[in-house]
Amino acid sequence: MSKTIDFYYDYGSPAAYLAWSQIYDIAEKHSATVVRKPALLGGIFKETGNRPPVSVPAKGKYMFHDLVRYSKKYGVDWQMNSAFPINTIYLMRGALYAQKEGFIEAYDEACFNAVWRDNKNMGDPEVVAQVFAEAGFDTEAIGASMQDPEIKKQLFAVTAEAVENGLFGMPSFIVDGELYWGQDRLDWVEEAIA
Amino acid sequence: MSKTIDFYYDYGSPAAYLAWSQIYDIAEKHSATVVRKPALLGGIFKETGNRPPVSVPAKGKYMFHDLVRYSKKYGVDWQMNSAFPINTIYLMRGALYAQKEGFIEAYDEACFNAVWRDNKNMGDPEVVAQVFAEAGFDTEAIGASMQDPEIKKQLFAVTAEAVENGLFGMPSFIVDGELYWGQDRLDWVEEAIA
Repeated sequence: MSKTIDFYYDYGSPAAYLAWSQIYDIAEKHSATVVRKPALLGGIFKETGNRPPVSVPAKGKYMFHDLVRYSKKYGVDWQMNSAFPINTIYLMRGALYAQKEGFIEAYDEACFNAVWRDNKNMGDPEVVAQVFAEAGFDTEAIGASMQDPEIKKQLFAVTAEAVENGLFGMPSFIVDGELYWGQDRLDWVEEAIA
Repeated sequence: MSKTIDFYYDYGSPAAYLAWSQIYDIAEKHSATVVRKPALLGGIFKETGNRPPVSVPAKGKYMFHDLVRYSKKYGVDWQMNSAFPINTIYLMRGALYAQKEGFIEAYDEACFNAVWRDNKNMGDPEVVAQVFAEAGFDTEAIGASMQDPEIKKQLFAVTAEAVENGLFGMPSFIVDGELYWGQDRLDWVEEAIA
């Protein structure tokens, strides 16, 4: 029977970008379905008492090297973002709108690539508008969704659901009720769906 | 040319136990040399501002499952220690003495297995004495070394060296000046020595 991978992500996480670059190929290989769960990493940190790895300088420095190693292994263009850490709350709200409207695949691609391939400051509304226009999105509709009380509530709900499911960081995956944290656990995710 | 792996560990870390269970076989496969670096994880946390994973309850819970997965993958007996976290400062001092006296291999085995295979409270001096006696060690000499000012200084120095080399957690490995953190980076360590 075909399995389902719940994929929790935030565009602000470099490891989520690397996971996003791999997870769909892995899922396809085993005819599994990826269920996108755009959520707010900052909210998860706050709720669980966790902190970003870069809050420990030595860890941040190491993580950069670790991400370089994995991006080379995957053959994926990646660079550190100059504006890191980016406040992604508006982008993540837009993701829920894109999911509702059926263009989440293109939206993920635009946001992840802008931040982690093209080094754009996606915390800057003007840059965001430009990236969305280039992707052919209805920038006004997305902009409006970012202030929509229903969307705000929904982002809060997905993030709360993530915490209920045991998440404390991103990216995370759930297969058969089992939690896997980190792009470095993709092998385990693949084993779980195989 | 044969490569060298600096292996930084503390008996209080379950992931260090898993790494210890694998690293010598990996090194042998590639004729590499493991240089043991017993150091104090608590000191590294303090110096770098890092915290134990279990300080975030959701992370602690996840890590338990993650360690179970890896211990099964490696085929290694592992269980959570009831007295965790254990103050390992005396054990680590003893490790430096054992290293000087040439029985560090047996000492590592006794300490790691006592904590992570046999669920012994190695923070309790009586338990420690019993474990060391069973291993055939000179418990009095080791006990004396645990109060030896030279050994104390040496543990401080190895721990300071670890921090200088970029460490912020355990287990860690250094190959050709490159740092690898976590038992889940053994594949990278193997690649680096291959």
